[in-house]
Amino acid sequence: MPFHDRPIFPRGFRCASRNCGLKPTAKDLALFVSDVDAAAAAVFTRNKFPGAPVLLGRETIRGGRLRAIFANSKVSNVATGERGLENARRMAVAAATEIGSTPDRILVSSTGVIGVRLPIEIIEAGVQGMSTELCSDPIAGAEGIMTTDTHPKALSLGVGDATITWVAKGSGMIEPNMATMLAYVFTDAALDAPALDRMLRHAVDVSFNMLSVDSDTSTSDTCAILANGLAGPVDEHAFLDALVAGCIRMTEILARDGEGATHLLRTTIRSARDPGEARRIAKSLVNSPLIKTMVYGADPNVGRILMAVGKCFDCAIDPASTSAWINNHEVLRDGYRLDFDDAAVRAALGSEIVDIVVSLGVGSAEATAYGCDLTQGYIDENAAYYSS
Amino acid sequence: MPFHDRPIFPRGFRCASRNCGLKPTAKDLALFVSDVDAAAAAVFTRNKFPGAPVLLGRETIRGGRLRAIFANSKVSNVATGERGLENARRMAVAAATEIGSTPDRILVSSTGVIGVRLPIEIIEAGVQGMSTELCSDPIAGAEGIMTTDTHPKALSLGVGDATITWVAKGSGMIEPNMATMLAYVFTDAALDAPALDRMLRHAVDVSFNMLSVDSDTSTSDTCAILANGLAGPVDEHAFLDALVAGCIRMTEILARDGEGATHLLRTTIRSARDPGEARRIAKSLVNSPLIKTMVYGADPNVGRILMAVGKCFDCAIDPASTSAWINNHEVLRDGYRLDFDDAAVRAALGSEIVDIVVSLGVGSAEATAYGCDLTQGYIDENAAYYSS
Repeated sequence: MPFHDRPIFPRGFRCASRNCGLKPTAKDLALFVSDVDAAAAAVFTRNKFPGAPVLLGRETIRGGRLRAIFANSKVSNVATGERGLENARRMAVAAATEIGSTPDRILVSSTGVIGVRLPIEIIEAGVQGMSTELCSDPIAGAEGIMTTDTHPKALSLGVGDATITWVAKGSGMIEPNMATMLAYVFTDAALDAPALDRMLRHAVDVSFNMLSVDSDTSTSDTCAILANGLAGPVDEHAFLDALVAGCIRMTEILARDGEGATHLLRTTIRSARDPGEARRIAKSLVNSPLIKTMVYGADPNVGRILMAVGKCFDCAIDPASTSAWINNHEVLRDGYRLDFDDAAVRAALGSEIVDIVVSLGVGSAEATAYGCDLTQGYIDENAAYYSS
Repeated sequence: MPFHDRPIFPRGFRCASRNCGLKPTAKDLALFVSDVDAAAAAVFTRNKFPGAPVLLGRETIRGGRLRAIFANSKVSNVATGERGLENARRMAVAAATEIGSTPDRILVSSTGVIGVRLPIEIIEAGVQGMSTELCSDPIAGAEGIMTTDTHPKALSLGVGDATITWVAKGSGMIEPNMATMLAYVFTDAALDAPALDRMLRHAVDVSFNMLSVDSDTSTSDTCAILANGLAGPVDEHAFLDALVAGCIRMTEILARDGEGATHLLRTTIRSARDPGEARRIAKSLVNSPLIKTMVYGADPNVGRILMAVGKCFDCAIDPASTSAWINNHEVLRDGYRLDFDDAAVRAALGSEIVDIVVSLGVGSAEATAYGCDLTQGYIDENAAYYSS
């Protein structure tokens, strides 16, 4: 898909971001606004301790219409009880007042430390005047939602007359199930909420739901799509293809920027018995610490590939029909480690993107999972993290 | 349970270990022998790519009798096809010849790198004369099966007139399912093979099967018990209690010596809906990279505890009845992070053993999982590992 060199917004979308004092100096507020109400859909974390913004967001999205997304970073407003839910509602009211809308049209997100009271007064004061700063650069909004991300993340591409734009953040506590930690999709295509919901779920299923930085599922994952219709109708098939391609690309960007990561790791399972098993085995590979450290160390350790496939006890796996490739070098054929060119495979493992492909030879299902290597950087970042 | 200060063997068991040239200088062969045939039971890895010794071991153990265990370290004889199975059989023949028994009474194990041909001639030459070196110190045998273990592992205790002795190795690629990477139990109690099998499965279920260093399941896991009867009958309840206690203690020793580990981490789930859910949630906590790095960093991050419990989507979890303790300090009550003494909990996290207890308040089932923290040492060891 031809992504734009620099991300742009679809017609009628703008954003702003600010530091309001939650962080010392970095941006900690982001506001994404459509000029008109947009049809909308969203999916949220399946974690059993959802944050207050997720609880409120599930309620808000039932209306199928949004005018804006208002997000803060630094404090996630999770495990904060009734008071937290009240603070999430106050965020919606503050943003609605600022842009001249109603709270039921505002999707609120918070990301950051868990179990800390949201400093709502600072956010209420901080949002004032943001509507005068709205600009057309999606990166500006992406900056306001960063936590341990090393760079702001935005993408866009065209579908017919319409544009689709993704803004997201990721980095740690990332094995989304239903969505990833804050991914927003904006389009000016004219699509209704049920169609958006159906397409979003399909796209998320093969992208964000196949992402894992560290096998840990956040309490705040949110993926929302807003379609304000200003570009008119689009071909739905073309739109869905573009939506899937952009969600997968953003998933790769999030994986590559996983905490401490130095490689993007893609694990693809082919000829599995069914799609569920293909997904489970792909995830087993992408989450295996021994696969992740092997990618970091650029060592073609075929034994670890076998191990990570074989530990999916309940899947149809037959050593005699299992083959594997590392960046197109065949290393395993029908269960036997091949006598491959060690130096060449080591060199291939040095590239920034590492593809491990395993063919199971027991069916026709396929799946790809997205992750990263495991390095000292992840340990440093998460052992030094100060939660209180 | 009163474990002996120094491990001893039960009556009639002895062992020897040697360097035969698989490793540069460290010991790489171990031989454990009973003076008489022993009733025996064993459980093996559920990984779908079992090593040749596991395939042979499943066949051998059907007889319910063993005279010896013969193991090598450095090369695991996994993914080596028919030739590998033939080499495992040759190991059994070589050991049987050396001790004057038959190959169907020899359990063979191999541990080390996967996908490399076993240097069988070196092992056949290496075992010659080992029967003249048999000694009464279990540690001598434990030394022969070490890979990345930092110390040899053996334990013993008395049950009535009988003794039970455990010898094991662990360290990496450790989330056993059915058994752990090479754990041998020797006793002079008189018990038949079906009773041993039943008791071993029960003991393994609450010990080695609840161990995870890194969520990766080896292709060679083997846990065997030999009872030569020389001490006569024992009280079966007392024996089972001792067997469970020793398996749990050995599990803790293996966890504490996980690759790069600086802490033993125990995660206990109380008042879960059923035992299966208690086990799953305990494993979710013990395997979470964010929990493991939090233990390493001694940070009382209640959000990560919530996250790791809450990502067990399909389990009965109610935030309103969930409470948690870190080394006896209550940090979460009914879903709310308490305003606990941060410095005191940080200090408690500094101790070598970290207990995280979560009470779910939805039933009466309980389970404990055993693991370790995640440190730079694990990354260093596994990124630098050279597989070929």
